[in-house]
Amino acid sequence: MLRYELLKTEGHARRGRLTLNHGVVETPIFMPVGTYGTVKGVLPRSLEEAGAQIILGNTFHLWMRPGLDVLQSFGGLHRFEGWNKPILTDSGGFQVWSLGEMRKISEEGVKFASPVNGDKLFLTPEVSMQIQTVLNSDIVMQFDECTPYETKGQLTTEAQARASMELSRRWAKRCIAEFERLENPNALFGIVQGGMFEHLRQESLDALVEMDLPGYAIGGVSVGEPKDEMLRIMAHTPHRLPAHKPRYLMGVGTPEDLVDGVACGVDMFDCVMPTRNARNGHLFTRFGDLKIRNAKHRASDRPVDETCSCYCCRNFSRAYLHHLDRCGEMLGPMLASIHNIHYYLNLMREVREALDEGRFEAFRQQFKADRSRGIG
Amino acid sequence: MLRYELLKTEGHARRGRLTLNHGVVETPIFMPVGTYGTVKGVLPRSLEEAGAQIILGNTFHLWMRPGLDVLQSFGGLHRFEGWNKPILTDSGGFQVWSLGEMRKISEEGVKFASPVNGDKLFLTPEVSMQIQTVLNSDIVMQFDECTPYETKGQLTTEAQARASMELSRRWAKRCIAEFERLENPNALFGIVQGGMFEHLRQESLDALVEMDLPGYAIGGVSVGEPKDEMLRIMAHTPHRLPAHKPRYLMGVGTPEDLVDGVACGVDMFDCVMPTRNARNGHLFTRFGDLKIRNAKHRASDRPVDETCSCYCCRNFSRAYLHHLDRCGEMLGPMLASIHNIHYYLNLMREVREALDEGRFEAFRQQFKADRSRGIG
Ligand SMILES: [Zn+2]
Ligand SMILES: [Zn+2]
Repeated sequence: MLRYELLKTEGHARRGRLTLNHGVVETPIFMPVGTYGTVKGVLPRSLEEAGAQIILGNTFHLWMRPGLDVLQSFGGLHRFEGWNKPILTDSGGFQVWSLGEMRKISEEGVKFASPVNGDKLFLTPEVSMQIQTVLNSDIVMQFDECTPYETKGQLTTEAQARASMELSRRWAKRCIAEFERLENPNALFGIVQGGMFEHLRQESLDALVEMDLPGYAIGGVSVGEPKDEMLRIMAHTPHRLPAHKPRYLMGVGTPEDLVDGVACGVDMFDCVMPTRNARNGHLFTRFGDLKIRNAKHRASDRPVDETCSCYCCRNFSRAYLHHLDRCGEMLGPMLASIHNIHYYLNLMREVREALDEGRFEAFRQQFKADRSRGIG
Repeated sequence: MLRYELLKTEGHARRGRLTLNHGVVETPIFMPVGTYGTVKGVLPRSLEEAGAQIILGNTFHLWMRPGLDVLQSFGGLHRFEGWNKPILTDSGGFQVWSLGEMRKISEEGVKFASPVNGDKLFLTPEVSMQIQTVLNSDIVMQFDECTPYETKGQLTTEAQARASMELSRRWAKRCIAEFERLENPNALFGIVQGGMFEHLRQESLDALVEMDLPGYAIGGVSVGEPKDEMLRIMAHTPHRLPAHKPRYLMGVGTPEDLVDGVACGVDMFDCVMPTRNARNGHLFTRFGDLKIRNAKHRASDRPVDETCSCYCCRNFSRAYLHHLDRCGEMLGPMLASIHNIHYYLNLMREVREALDEGRFEAFRQQFKADRSRGIG
């Protein structure tokens, strides 16, 4: 099931509420990424404490490991990974696309060799729906071809982007048919493609809206394009999607991208940035980013972010985090991940409050001024 | 300060209570090891939740990183690492001894090159006391020479063991003098040495008892000797120490060693085994040890230990831990460390309860029967 209530708007920005089989999600929302059934370095209860309402899983990775038989025996991903709130899974399309030379795309689907054991595998729209039905994710993504920004230095041409978009469109129809045949009780989202061509995006969008899916994503961004190209597509597509359905911008991005994305009408975001950057000692704060490896933090008794209420900031100093990083201690990335996830989720909480109170634009200005102030 | 109350005995086994500057410790107790100011892979609050009453820090490591100036500016190790319960620190003796060819031992102390930056350093009984005073650890260990079991394949001779023990004895006196000069408000423990020679151990013990220290450790075990040699010393020394003072067996050991150590009159243990083994997928359970990498756990929905109430066992399956290990996900060692630390601390809790109720010997028999049953 999926119910989306549009609670309030300000310009293109929207405050909404999504009801899914495993619970309610207040939007706009950031969704932490749990590729292999774990948000890297974070205990599930730390996620709950940070206010995570929904997390991601990667269909392709989970298909490889632990494999469908194991996930089936657990009745899906929720019980396997000990997470009883909503889960969204991608379709596996982006991952097989990323295999590069290792895969062969046809009308039917994508043939590839398993990176785990070399087995020859065939991922199709139907197989993706079958896997995601076993996973029992609350939001199922259609199988699509992720249109590349460039291939070996050659920008994708309009003709190539059109062919790719049309293939994804045909695959969307096959996904819908298989999803229905499987009587999957969850919600299937379509994905708008079209590369960097706005008229192709519009064509893709129109066709998907015609199919009347319960939600839509904007795919094919954050695939190596220049930042201004991403921002152009982010400004183009979201607000053109149906107002009464949730909108998900895939794989984006920095804190600034999230706030600007909300201004463009996006409801849902996911990105590996908070956890990946945490593991590299890159911490997000209200007043700009902080590199914990910098020697200036060696003796600092300040928390990472004085305005943050996370377990890390309430209990530990920059000096301690700097020390843990220097010693290669696991606790370093553990605490940094807790903070970064909390930062992202709290940012979206502040965005929702600002929308509730009709002061989102003022919030956005203050947010940008704060972020560019610098952490000191 | 240190106050030790002997609450109850059963044979050599003792139930006691230790009052230190940062709190009360119920004995017998296991102390998790936090070498660099962090018990590897475990959030301090997970330690508290598991019932940790006191943790260890390593003087040598903390001296190298973050360095004394940083620790001084935090007023000691407690605030730096966010742990407000008691801390015991070792003297650095074992670590400089482990440097092998890299160090030179004289009457005055140990000269060595810093493994971090090559600086020439000189660790003496006085310097060890000075560092541990900055750390403000509740229990300070005397600087000693750890008598090796063998050197390049040659067993330590009685003459060598005597010379080493006598050096440690002279260093004990220098430690006491410096500890008093520094007006350190915590408790200084002496360390019984003497290698594998019981009469040397007795001589060491007699001399240390004469010095009237508030507690005593048995050192020079778990240094590569055969298991039966360790057990022989464990059976020899602890019960000969003063009844009204706490006894600490350094660097030991397996769950069986702990329970047998209690039977020999030991009150305090430390060992890296629970966390190190956790990182290698080796889990301790009531019914024997479990290697999570074993393919037989691939689809098991059983917890690691059905009788364990830790966060890991309450929420996750063997299959999930197996999967995390296979994927190299950080959450694997994190959950395994939570379980193993909980297992060790809970074992000691059960030991204390058995002692309280005068049924320690029966408990010990049941413990051994359970452990050898096998995990299935
Ligand atoms: Zn924080
Ligand atoms: Zn457990």
